[in-house]
Amino acid sequence: MKKFNTIIRHLSHINTLSQISSLLSWDQETYMPPDAINARASQLQVMAGLIHDEWQSDELKNELNQYFDFTSYTIDDSLSSEEYSFIKELSSTWIRNTRLTKSLVQELTKATTTAQHAWASARKNDDFATFAPYLKNVIDLTREKIKQLGSNDHPYNTLLDEFEPGMTVNELDNIFTPLKNETINFLNEYSPSTPPSINGPFDYEQQLIYSKELMTMLGYDTKRGRLDISTHPFTIDIHPNDVRITTRINTNYLMESISSTIHEVGHGLYEQGLDPQWAGTPYGSARSMGIHESQSRLWEIFIGQSLPFWEGQLDRLQTLFPSTKSNSAMDFHQHCRTIKPHWCRVESDIITYNLHIILRYECEKALFSNELDVDMLPEFWNQKMNDYLGIKSLTPAKGCLQDVHWSAGLFGYFPSYTLGTLIAAELFKHLSKLFFPIDQKIRNGEFKPIKDWLNEHIHFQGSKKTTHQLLDDLGISYNPASFLNSFIP
Amino acid sequence: MKKFNTIIRHLSHINTLSQISSLLSWDQETYMPPDAINARASQLQVMAGLIHDEWQSDELKNELNQYFDFTSYTIDDSLSSEEYSFIKELSSTWIRNTRLTKSLVQELTKATTTAQHAWASARKNDDFATFAPYLKNVIDLTREKIKQLGSNDHPYNTLLDEFEPGMTVNELDNIFTPLKNETINFLNEYSPSTPPSINGPFDYEQQLIYSKELMTMLGYDTKRGRLDISTHPFTIDIHPNDVRITTRINTNYLMESISSTIHEVGHGLYEQGLDPQWAGTPYGSARSMGIHESQSRLWEIFIGQSLPFWEGQLDRLQTLFPSTKSNSAMDFHQHCRTIKPHWCRVESDIITYNLHIILRYECEKALFSNELDVDMLPEFWNQKMNDYLGIKSLTPAKGCLQDVHWSAGLFGYFPSYTLGTLIAAELFKHLSKLFFPIDQKIRNGEFKPIKDWLNEHIHFQGSKKTTHQLLDDLGISYNPASFLNSFIP
Repeated sequence: MKKFNTIIRHLSHINTLSQISSLLSWDQETYMPPDAINARASQLQVMAGLIHDEWQSDELKNELNQYFDFTSYTIDDSLSSEEYSFIKELSSTWIRNTRLTKSLVQELTKATTTAQHAWASARKNDDFATFAPYLKNVIDLTREKIKQLGSNDHPYNTLLDEFEPGMTVNELDNIFTPLKNETINFLNEYSPSTPPSINGPFDYEQQLIYSKELMTMLGYDTKRGRLDISTHPFTIDIHPNDVRITTRINTNYLMESISSTIHEVGHGLYEQGLDPQWAGTPYGSARSMGIHESQSRLWEIFIGQSLPFWEGQLDRLQTLFPSTKSNSAMDFHQHCRTIKPHWCRVESDIITYNLHIILRYECEKALFSNELDVDMLPEFWNQKMNDYLGIKSLTPAKGCLQDVHWSAGLFGYFPSYTLGTLIAAELFKHLSKLFFPIDQKIRNGEFKPIKDWLNEHIHFQGSKKTTHQLLDDLGISYNPASFLNSFIP
Repeated sequence: MKKFNTIIRHLSHINTLSQISSLLSWDQETYMPPDAINARASQLQVMAGLIHDEWQSDELKNELNQYFDFTSYTIDDSLSSEEYSFIKELSSTWIRNTRLTKSLVQELTKATTTAQHAWASARKNDDFATFAPYLKNVIDLTREKIKQLGSNDHPYNTLLDEFEPGMTVNELDNIFTPLKNETINFLNEYSPSTPPSINGPFDYEQQLIYSKELMTMLGYDTKRGRLDISTHPFTIDIHPNDVRITTRINTNYLMESISSTIHEVGHGLYEQGLDPQWAGTPYGSARSMGIHESQSRLWEIFIGQSLPFWEGQLDRLQTLFPSTKSNSAMDFHQHCRTIKPHWCRVESDIITYNLHIILRYECEKALFSNELDVDMLPEFWNQKMNDYLGIKSLTPAKGCLQDVHWSAGLFGYFPSYTLGTLIAAELFKHLSKLFFPIDQKIRNGEFKPIKDWLNEHIHFQGSKKTTHQLLDDLGISYNPASFLNSFIP
């Protein structure tokens, strides 16, 4: 790959600028004094401008042009397969970063910043009408984005491509339709049970201590990362040697910090496991949002909610949180695994969660194929909420205003949540065969072999292979039926 | 000042880049995971390069050239006095940022980074010889820096100018020589007494709580700043709306957190009090290191160590730290004000501290006038330590290796510590007249009038006036005799 040295130097420089932007964002969500927000916005804008300018570099363009034809979109045949995949990934990233006009990028930044403010107050006032014009504006600009980027078959494919390179509406429908139908069929015949109660209050500091213990137990390298508190938990990848996660703590609900921490540890392990030698290049970048979510969901749901996990943790939990002394490991397990439709996506169980995602996907697809007008969104939403989950008459705050994503222009992102969950299910099956009996390892807290395997077969791969190749090589595919079988009693 | 709009836009952009660098540095000292250090070095290097390049901008040069002649160093006579002082300040900053070759800047960065590592291990091993070649290298590069920047009368004047614009060796000698002689005379006739003991241990969390209370009590705006913990306390000015201070906590020694916090609050109030409208321009920048230190010393020494301060705080202190129940306010006051020579600068009392500074100043002056060879530094140091403070036979770790400054290339910085202390003494006298009886205000915790006055007369002034003008307008001058009279019993 020596011939790509100039390209790699360039990407590495862009990556350093991105690292700096990431730190600015992390600080904004964790420690920044509130009145610094305007100064922070200017700092982020300057960094975004610098990154944008670096992608437009003639040197980078000319180097890339030696291996990639900008008119025919063909890649030099004489490259080795390794080199070929490098250029293939890079060229699509390059196109996404150079095709959009600077004015559109700036307008989108401004529109989404304003729309997020409008969304927050509309949700608070439970009033969709005041948010609608902002959402229309973001959608119009996103349509222009699709136009500038170009699209195949369906405009939504261009949006998907940003989060799930290679994924299409056709393939997604083939996965989501059976998942939706089978889940609805199941729910129609299922009577929800009441989960066992786990009573608090749960001390704030003790929860923080336990979150840090979990982090270390699952193999997180705290020399190369840290845990902080934020309103919405997140993982930020500044560099493979600086991957920071956050959690949130609710003194009345213990599961919130535990599941948030394990979820973000899953994301963080992926970023810590990337090859630092290739930082900023396709080889050192996470494959897709779906693969990312597969890592967080694998640890959160398949490992962290399993009965053997709680069996292994019970003693420590009861020491830290004496009010749980009367609970059994089975109580914890059943509490996490209770299936019960809920209007709120993030409070939903593993089964009904996917219907939330599919509903959003159907809204987005309809919006971008011009089959749905923004003003009709609340009605469209409520109809599906009723049809899929049997939940009736939602006001906007509990309906289509519940998530920040659309105001932030993140169209095409939601499907990754369910794709990741489906992959996680298959990965767990795969791991269960490799590390038989896996229950015993989970109970004993022996997570290292699992983490090491993920490091080698997923994390260290970066984007060397396409998502399909990566999954094919592991003998894994999206399998709704198999996923449902893991959870449906 | 509308004619300077292009210049101001440029300065504001450079300032945004500096804000980002400052956040990177703050994070490095507070929350950065240890293994992220190399990535952080690259990030800081990229930012330093961007800032360097922006100073070289032709547009900025051409705009500035309209009012400032680069060959004759003269400023356009037709400017108003306000405009004149703006251009005068800017032109010297511009010269400092454009005269040095990029290769020298990079070599200095590299040399000081390496020298700081070498210094840390040399201090640990108490071995000056291994550090000497690194120090020689930093000094050689600093000599080259002086050459590129040019100098008047004495090469050391160029170094002073970076921290104390306008200050010269001549003026400094006129201040330091009487201060030194009178202090030595006093010490020769003084028998140190034993300070009253303030016994702990002092709870870590309670100390943190008290530091935060002090911050708020002294008027620090926590919406525009924060307090964290670091090995060496510092203040970092990201933006007037984002000024962060740190403190350190020693569970065996209560004074450490209290005096560090008050000291840094003093620096932080200055930065929070700058005019945000002029951020990044001379009008919105702190005047000098000496004026900065006058703010921290005023609060730390003249207010925070005074008897009425401890009288006002005693109840709260005894509640937070019950082991101090047998101490009186006078014990706290006398504990802070005990005069006793010590080999360590940062552990020295207010009187002997200045001899540490003058000793360092004399070393630096001798090094840059080629009267002292690096290899002779330990001997030169020990001789003065004996002559001034009566302290004999120091090994390098307790002698000339005790401070980080020289390895970091910070020559010309030390004098500001004493200049700031002298100004603080005069400021306190001035305030004592304005807010008579000031003891009562300090005892009652009524710090707002003092802070407001400093905001208006010092902080908000930025660098509108020269240091001399600023002090003259307040009727203040450096007055060693008057300073000594405030403290000598």
